[in-house]
Amino acid sequence: MAKLQNDLFLRACRREETERTPIWVMRQAGRYLPEYRAVREQSDFLTMCKTPELAAEVTIQPVDLIGVDAAIIFSDILVIPEAMGMELEMIESKGPVFHNPVRDKSSADKLKTIDPSTDLKYVMDAVALTKRELNGRVPLIGFCGSPWTLLTYMAEGGGSKNFSHVKKMIFNEPELAHSILDKLADVSAAYLSAKIEAGADAVQIFDTWGGNLSQRDFREFSLRYIEKIIANTKRTNQPVIVFSKGVHHSLGSIANCGADVIGLDWTMDIGEVRREVGSRAALQGNLDPTVLYASHDNIRLRAREVLDSYGHGTGHIFNLGHGILPDVPPENLKALVDFIKTESNSYH
Amino acid sequence: MAKLQNDLFLRACRREETERTPIWVMRQAGRYLPEYRAVREQSDFLTMCKTPELAAEVTIQPVDLIGVDAAIIFSDILVIPEAMGMELEMIESKGPVFHNPVRDKSSADKLKTIDPSTDLKYVMDAVALTKRELNGRVPLIGFCGSPWTLLTYMAEGGGSKNFSHVKKMIFNEPELAHSILDKLADVSAAYLSAKIEAGADAVQIFDTWGGNLSQRDFREFSLRYIEKIIANTKRTNQPVIVFSKGVHHSLGSIANCGADVIGLDWTMDIGEVRREVGSRAALQGNLDPTVLYASHDNIRLRAREVLDSYGHGTGHIFNLGHGILPDVPPENLKALVDFIKTESNSYH
Repeated sequence: MAKLQNDLFLRACRREETERTPIWVMRQAGRYLPEYRAVREQSDFLTMCKTPELAAEVTIQPVDLIGVDAAIIFSDILVIPEAMGMELEMIESKGPVFHNPVRDKSSADKLKTIDPSTDLKYVMDAVALTKRELNGRVPLIGFCGSPWTLLTYMAEGGGSKNFSHVKKMIFNEPELAHSILDKLADVSAAYLSAKIEAGADAVQIFDTWGGNLSQRDFREFSLRYIEKIIANTKRTNQPVIVFSKGVHHSLGSIANCGADVIGLDWTMDIGEVRREVGSRAALQGNLDPTVLYASHDNIRLRAREVLDSYGHGTGHIFNLGHGILPDVPPENLKALVDFIKTESNSYH
Repeated sequence: MAKLQNDLFLRACRREETERTPIWVMRQAGRYLPEYRAVREQSDFLTMCKTPELAAEVTIQPVDLIGVDAAIIFSDILVIPEAMGMELEMIESKGPVFHNPVRDKSSADKLKTIDPSTDLKYVMDAVALTKRELNGRVPLIGFCGSPWTLLTYMAEGGGSKNFSHVKKMIFNEPELAHSILDKLADVSAAYLSAKIEAGADAVQIFDTWGGNLSQRDFREFSLRYIEKIIANTKRTNQPVIVFSKGVHHSLGSIANCGADVIGLDWTMDIGEVRREVGSRAALQGNLDPTVLYASHDNIRLRAREVLDSYGHGTGHIFNLGHGILPDVPPENLKALVDFIKTESNSYH
C-alpha cells in the first residue's frame, strides 16, 4: 500500500506531536455536496453502500473538494442488522425503517449469525478500493454503530422520539437486551477487524443514542459493549475513536474503556474535558454543526474558540460536534477547513 | 383563599424541613390518563386551554386520581406567541405548528405588544378557578416557556430536528434574536406575575430546547433571559423552578440566576448536582420517564436509587426527568407516587 503522505490525523489520535491540528467532519461524504447528490440521484442509498465504486467515489469527494485530513468510508451503521436478516429501507424524508423490528425473544432468535468478512464483503471491497484510490493522500476511517445504538434502531423499527420499545426491553427483559447487545458486540468487533484487515487506518464507534440513557443505564447497556468491541477488535496500531452523543456524565469512563480518542458533542467545553481526561485519550470535536450556517468570519471566530479552549499541544482532532447538516453551503465547510489548516499551527 | 392542607412541595422548594419528599410529575395532566382523553375527545387542545372549566378539570385530575403533591395548571407555553399574533395550530400527530414563523425583522415587527393579564385573561381565570376548586388540597404551579424555547418554536414554525432557522438567526442576526428574546422575557415576567396574582403558589420556567445550544450560547441566548424573567416577576414568597433540559454544563449558573429550584433531566446524577449546587437551590427530578414502562417492583427500585442519590435531608422534589409519556399506564405512576409517599420519610 502507498505510504501515507498526510498522517496528521493518525498522529493526533495517538497524541504524538503534529505541526497543526488535523480536521475532518462527520457525514463529510454527504448531501451538502452537490457532487454527492449527483451520484445519489443515479442510485439509492443502500445501492451506493453496496457498490464499492460508488462508495469509494463519494468517500473521496471531500478529500478532493474540501481538503479534509481523513476520509471516512461511505456506509451506514445499519448494514450489520440488515446482514443479520432485518429488512432495511431508507426513506429520504423519514430516515431508516426496519419493517420487522426486534422486540421479543422470537424475533431476536431470527437474527442470523454472520461473518462480516464474507456477509459484508461489499464493505471490505469498498474499503480496499478506496484505499487504493486514495493512494496514500490521507488515512481512511472505518466505522460501526455501538450495540446500544443498533439495538435502538432494531427495536424501535427506525428513528424514535421516546425510545419506548427499547426502553421497555431493557427494563422488562434485560436478559434479552443483553443477549442481543452481546451478539452485536461480537459481530461489530469482527466487522471492525475485517475493515482494518481491508485497509482502514482507524475506526470510529458511533453511539448516537447513548445520551438517551441515564448514567447507570449507559454503563450497563452501552459502554460495556463498546468496551467489548474494542477489546476484541484485531488491530496493530489503528486508533479507536468512540463518539457517544450526550454522555457528558461518562467521558472519563470512555477514556478508560480502551478508546484512543473520545468524540465530543458541542455541549461540552473541550478544554474542561481535556483537563478531566488528561493523557488518557485524544479528543475529537466539537464545533456546533449549525455554526456552519454562519458567515465565514463568524465560523472562523467560533472555530478559534474551540482551538483556544483545547489549548496548546497535541491530541486534538478538529471536527463538528455532530454530522454536517445537509443544507450547509460547501464553501462554509471549506472556510472552516482552510482556517484550521492555516491557523492551528500556532497551537502546536 | 383556603389555607393549604399539604404544603410539602412549597416547603421543599424553599429547602425547609419536610416529613417526606413531595412528588408531582411534568405533563401529569395529560394523555396517559383516560379521564383526560375523555375531556380531550370533546374538545381540541387549544379550546381546553382557553376554557377555564376544562383547564381546571384536567389540572385537578392527577390530584384526585394519582395523589400528587402539587397541581400544575393545564396550558401550553405557546399561548404567549399566539397572543402576540402568531397563528398556532396543534396537530395531534405532529405537535404545534406556527403557520407564520418569525425569521426576519419584518415578521418580528409584526409581533404585538401584549398585556398578559388582559390578553391572556383566560389563563388567569383558569388559575383562579382551579385554586378555588382545589380548595387548599395542594399548591398550584403556574408556568411559562423560556424565551429561547419560545423563539425556537417561533422561528422553526414548530418542532425541529436541526434548529436551522433559529440557529441561523442567532449566528447571523444576533441583534434581531436578542430583541425578540428581550420582548419575550418582558411578556413572560408579566405573565408569571399575573398568574401569581391569580393564585399560583409557585412558577416553573420550561427551557425545553436550552440543551441544543453550546455552553456559551446557552448563557447568551437562554439563561440571560430566564434571569430577566425571574428578576422582573412580581412575587412574595412563591418559588421559581427552572427546568432546562440537557444543560449539564450550566446547573451551577442556573443556581445563581435567582431560581429557587433547578429541574434536572435524567442524565444527571442528582446527588452529584446537589454537591455542586449546595445550599443555593432545591432540586427537582429526575427519574427517567421511560422507567414508568417497567414493572412496579422495578419502578420502586429505580425510584429508590434517585432518593438514595439525593440522600438525606430537605430540598428534593421528586419528579421525572421529563414529561410523562402518553402510553404509560396510570397505575404505574400511582405505584411511583405511593412509593415516594410511604418510603421517603426515612430520608427526612
